[in-house]
Amino acid sequence: MPYALLNRLTAKPDQRLAVVEILVESASCSRTIRLVSSTWSPNRRTTPNEIWVVDLWTSAEAHAQALKAPELRPWVEKATPLLEGVSEQTEVRPVGGKGMPGT
Amino acid sequence: MPYALLNRLTAKPDQRLAVVEILVESASCSRTIRLVSSTWSPNRRTTPNEIWVVDLWTSAEAHAQALKAPELRPWVEKATPLLEGVSEQTEVRPVGGKGMPGT
Repeated sequence: MPYALLNRLTAKPDQRLAVVEILVESASCSRTIRLVSSTWSPNRRTTPNEIWVVDLWTSAEAHAQALKAPELRPWVEKATPLLEGVSEQTEVRPVGGKGMPGT
Repeated sequence: MPYALLNRLTAKPDQRLAVVEILVESASCSRTIRLVSSTWSPNRRTTPNEIWVVDLWTSAEAHAQALKAPELRPWVEKATPLLEGVSEQTEVRPVGGKGMPGT
């Protein structure tokens, strides 16, 4: 059963781009489909440090397995000190769509 | 500049599946890439009526244009009475990813 995670992260001041980079690069070492987004603010000078990550997995087990993978460790250790507080995570079950892989 | 919307909707009791169907079918008449999800609860008997919709657009203008399209009207009119309260919408700017169309 497909499984998705909607994550809301907050980067420490001036660390947003570094965190985005880690999130994009770390996806290459696991089987997730990942969309990394910043808060929409094309017309504002200051950009909030909020980052949204949508991860798609073939199953909850595939996600649990990926969390245990040793190759993910360095990415987690790199990202953690750049984050403010705890990330907010919503587990959802993909039920349909258009144009997405697998839909 | 790509543009995405993260929407949290709540269906009225027993209307979740009907709303999901409308959300999947209505995507076919616009240029969005859409992922429709239910709250994850494979082991619970009762499923909350929360629905998450992630919509990807090529630009904010493409989304604004789609909202004006007359072919969307019947879908909105069909879905609105099945929803509880107002949907929560977060505008985000895709900045990277893996396996997603366009990333």
